[in-house]
Amino acid sequence: MAGYESEKQTGQHDAACKTNLHFTQPIRCIVKLGGAAITLKSELEMINEETLQKVSEQLRQAMVASSAKPPGMDWSKRPGKPDVSCNSEEFGDHSVLDCRRFIVVHGAGSFGHFQASKSGVHKGQLHKPLVKCGFVATRISVTTLNLEIVRALAREGIPSVGISPFSCGWVTSERHVKSADFSIVAKTLDSGFVPVLHGDAVLDEIQGCTILSGDVIISHLAAHAKPDFVVFLTDVYGVYDRPPTEPDAVLLKEIAIGEDGSWSVVKPKLQNSIELTVAAHDTTGGMATKISEAATIAKLGIDVYIVKAATSHSLKALNGDLRSSIPDDWLGTVVRSLK
Amino acid sequence: MAGYESEKQTGQHDAACKTNLHFTQPIRCIVKLGGAAITLKSELEMINEETLQKVSEQLRQAMVASSAKPPGMDWSKRPGKPDVSCNSEEFGDHSVLDCRRFIVVHGAGSFGHFQASKSGVHKGQLHKPLVKCGFVATRISVTTLNLEIVRALAREGIPSVGISPFSCGWVTSERHVKSADFSIVAKTLDSGFVPVLHGDAVLDEIQGCTILSGDVIISHLAAHAKPDFVVFLTDVYGVYDRPPTEPDAVLLKEIAIGEDGSWSVVKPKLQNSIELTVAAHDTTGGMATKISEAATIAKLGIDVYIVKAATSHSLKALNGDLRSSIPDDWLGTVVRSLK
Repeated sequence: MAGYESEKQTGQHDAACKTNLHFTQPIRCIVKLGGAAITLKSELEMINEETLQKVSEQLRQAMVASSAKPPGMDWSKRPGKPDVSCNSEEFGDHSVLDCRRFIVVHGAGSFGHFQASKSGVHKGQLHKPLVKCGFVATRISVTTLNLEIVRALAREGIPSVGISPFSCGWVTSERHVKSADFSIVAKTLDSGFVPVLHGDAVLDEIQGCTILSGDVIISHLAAHAKPDFVVFLTDVYGVYDRPPTEPDAVLLKEIAIGEDGSWSVVKPKLQNSIELTVAAHDTTGGMATKISEAATIAKLGIDVYIVKAATSHSLKALNGDLRSSIPDDWLGTVVRSLK
Repeated sequence: MAGYESEKQTGQHDAACKTNLHFTQPIRCIVKLGGAAITLKSELEMINEETLQKVSEQLRQAMVASSAKPPGMDWSKRPGKPDVSCNSEEFGDHSVLDCRRFIVVHGAGSFGHFQASKSGVHKGQLHKPLVKCGFVATRISVTTLNLEIVRALAREGIPSVGISPFSCGWVTSERHVKSADFSIVAKTLDSGFVPVLHGDAVLDEIQGCTILSGDVIISHLAAHAKPDFVVFLTDVYGVYDRPPTEPDAVLLKEIAIGEDGSWSVVKPKLQNSIELTVAAHDTTGGMATKISEAATIAKLGIDVYIVKAATSHSLKALNGDLRSSIPDDWLGTVVRSLK
């Protein structure tokens, strides 16, 4: 839900935020499926099926240890079939279901965005009928998308389980995350499943309600789960020095974050220094929050890869191939700590 | 999900069950939408649209104070319409959205049942590929139904919000409810929304996973939220002395529960005493658990009405009309404490 994240809602991990720390085993990766990548952003509630299918396939390759494709786990009704679509013979004593510890978080894209924007859910004021109705409508829309993404992953053989931030107790206070219960996410991982969270409409202790973006969820999860790395899958190749639609836009391949939060471009070597301000990136469609959240995560010593979904570059990022060194022909943006 | 509830999983509210007590204001009613009533039980993933629509209408009449129909809150994509289907003019400064404090819990019916039964999710053993895949498939199916029910209620103008027991931290231990976080349900009510929970596949501390039935959820919620009354909407008129398909089956209109848990039929006056054992009711399709849970709730001093969905009798029950006296022509079963 780009556009709703105020600067107040970004990465500061409020000391007052109550959390239960339950991540006892290492997390491999937290991956964000950007709303712009997996939906057709300008069309109401339309999934980008091709990209979602490809993303699911790459996630399966990155997560599931076995090279054999695991059995499908979406046994929903299929046209013309009266029975559940599963074949018991597929389920031998193989270990194809062992998978690396990934957490998936997705944005809303063209789900939720229209409903939230029409009603102003992000600004709160639940006593207003339009806001109250918009809250219900927004949650219906984002949970519809969550279900579709869980189904797409399950069809690929990823043991995915949908978890709504609203339902598992994420509450804000004046749009800052106030409490977030990570215990069910941790238990889900410990049981061998892949939790799939999403940008959601949530209750706010002060203003009644607001929108909690997928990016903010990721930076909070990263701070507590300390994954090996974080991948943002988006619809452009990474972070540019200006809107990527402009002809001279330069892809920033590596951004270093200082301890004081200052940013510098390491690659490419640029002749003029760039002001990587929030304002400079507002026009690139939600990049502002993404960079700010990426910086917050990188400051924790966790590498962040911002990369175009469903490309050979995204597969490298998801596989963790970039952790030792980054090939010259890799297209994307690495955000990492200077340390 | 009738048939999966072992006698071990019924109403005992384990002292070891960790709960957060957050219900500070009175709850009017907890209502169960029976899976058999709102779905076509013998057909995979098929909603009984007519009954669900009628049930939603009755719930709106019982919940929403205003006689005017509130605006619809499902703004999902409609065929041929590019924009969200809401009209800002509908949202004046009216108070049509004030609604009584109801909690809705629904069963699974033909959603989830097939997936769970094929894989044996209720028996646990998540290390088995079939069970692990079945868990994912079951959750996909029951959350699909939850979304459809939330949408049906929202279309009627009920500010409904879906909450999965799995996501909000219901965990079992050898099929007993071990922990259940009621705080998000309470916060949802306090914010003026109607929480909609459902029978779900959940994690189990001992056996890995199991099925948590809607009936068990209700008896736990009732014990903590202490509603004025509880309504079970089902596909038959109530509890009979034998399977209701038998020609001489007698509808038991009032069952009294003693402090020791013993049952007696108050109405009608029967010539022969009936043994209301679990076994006697097993053949009536899940009635066993329902009666057992109803008895547990009634023992708390809370009246339980078991009634056929989408009838004039269910509307009377939902409205609370039966609390003072029960009309002779009312068809249904009241289960109440002898005290």
